[in-house]
Amino acid sequence: MEKLKRTDRLVVLSTLLTKNPNALFSLSDLATITGAAKSTISEDLTIVKEVFSLFSLGELSSIAGAAGGVVYKPVEHEEATGEFLEKLAERFSEPDRIVPGGFIYMTDVIYDPRIISRIGEIFFTKFCACSPDYIVTVETKGIPIAMMTARSFNVPLVIIRDSGRVTEGTSVSINYVSGSSQRIQTMSLSRRALPTGAKVLIIDDFMKGGGTAQGMHNLMKEFNAEVLGTGVVIATREPQDKLIKDYYALLELISIHELSKNILIKPFIENKETFLK
Amino acid sequence: MEKLKRTDRLVVLSTLLTKNPNALFSLSDLATITGAAKSTISEDLTIVKEVFSLFSLGELSSIAGAAGGVVYKPVEHEEATGEFLEKLAERFSEPDRIVPGGFIYMTDVIYDPRIISRIGEIFFTKFCACSPDYIVTVETKGIPIAMMTARSFNVPLVIIRDSGRVTEGTSVSINYVSGSSQRIQTMSLSRRALPTGAKVLIIDDFMKGGGTAQGMHNLMKEFNAEVLGTGVVIATREPQDKLIKDYYALLELISIHELSKNILIKPFIENKETFLK
Repeated sequence: MEKLKRTDRLVVLSTLLTKNPNALFSLSDLATITGAAKSTISEDLTIVKEVFSLFSLGELSSIAGAAGGVVYKPVEHEEATGEFLEKLAERFSEPDRIVPGGFIYMTDVIYDPRIISRIGEIFFTKFCACSPDYIVTVETKGIPIAMMTARSFNVPLVIIRDSGRVTEGTSVSINYVSGSSQRIQTMSLSRRALPTGAKVLIIDDFMKGGGTAQGMHNLMKEFNAEVLGTGVVIATREPQDKLIKDYYALLELISIHELSKNILIKPFIENKETFLK
Repeated sequence: MEKLKRTDRLVVLSTLLTKNPNALFSLSDLATITGAAKSTISEDLTIVKEVFSLFSLGELSSIAGAAGGVVYKPVEHEEATGEFLEKLAERFSEPDRIVPGGFIYMTDVIYDPRIISRIGEIFFTKFCACSPDYIVTVETKGIPIAMMTARSFNVPLVIIRDSGRVTEGTSVSINYVSGSSQRIQTMSLSRRALPTGAKVLIIDDFMKGGGTAQGMHNLMKEFNAEVLGTGVVIATREPQDKLIKDYYALLELISIHELSKNILIKPFIENKETFLK
């Protein structure tokens, strides 16, 4: 291979890093890929780091030591997040989103790759201090968001099913009462989906009474998993007394009136309690 | 803002483009973001394009005209895909993946963000000539893969549910017989999830008899949607006579023996028939 110029190397480095969020690249790996000396790569990475910071494109973290290298962390600036959530709240507040029963039609938004890439990065930014081993969600609507969160953390996704499935071997099931249906439901997880003692972050699309989230917490106990936090896209203001206390929501559903077709959704204001357990 | 150097601009351009696959950036947008002249950006993009090609990082396509600009296409080289699929086939062939009933435990692989990012790009590469408006899948296990495919195409995901859900308004349901259960099942899609006449690509994790895929095709007819293609991760060799003829699989399940704990999975060899309808 012809020797690369710095300009060429910067394209390779920026692309590899941003395509693989939270993946560790050693200086040796990067030196091999680009055919440059480690000291040269080090200088290149300084430029990448500065530009990422200047343009709020995320952070480049250096990890020292023999097993060290660099990692791209897709963190968002608070200001950019605030603007994004304001717009998201407006979209969810569109009157024609009300479907019979007083529910909000959300799937066009929460299945849109550009939007949920951002949401995944926002959850990453919020929870990145706590290094989960797995992102856990329950089928179905939370899956795309949980998936993009898992991508930002570079950890596997675990999907709790709403019944035991023959194709996944032995499973553990628990019963829970979901706030939206007020019926006893079952959620199941394959025994081999999660090793015992794992650290997990729970991600879901919507929380009302917290019954589903509490069900997930209880199921996690069966796997001796440590729940590091719970993140949802929308939490309702009422009931204030939810079954799960420590959660983080992007947006708050303040009110919904089916008759007058009024929905009021705002960015969630964190209370003083910490959302990390 | 201080005037950026070419090195800095290349970091910004590479990062923005690869973070937003298949999204159009006009030269004016990029000029505004970086504070450089359009002619300068044009020269920068030539470098990005060459490096992407040299390192098989994808393609940069220029779109001419007033509404033109550049688009990053996350295409994979055939050789890299071949190596990846060989390794994937080996992983799925691990004997302890057999679960009672002769099924394969797949979720640790198909919920892993790094693996399914690659799978999404492989499906993109295979189907990128056909420009779908939506990626369609049926819950549950195919969702992460379909999501990453939707990300590569930069189009929304549509998830068919296995029953009508109260939170999505009016829905259309059809019955189908799934090959694995041999039971009549129902799949439903909210009327507003897909506009009439859309062009769709169907993505799923597994295909045996093709009953589920055929169900999706039939449901798409109810929405007057045009199915441009069907892609699955694993298709079984038997039955050869599947209900869906035109599909593309990444891997082929040649044989599975529960008693001797033998699984044989290989990269799928395309037959002469086209997989695009």
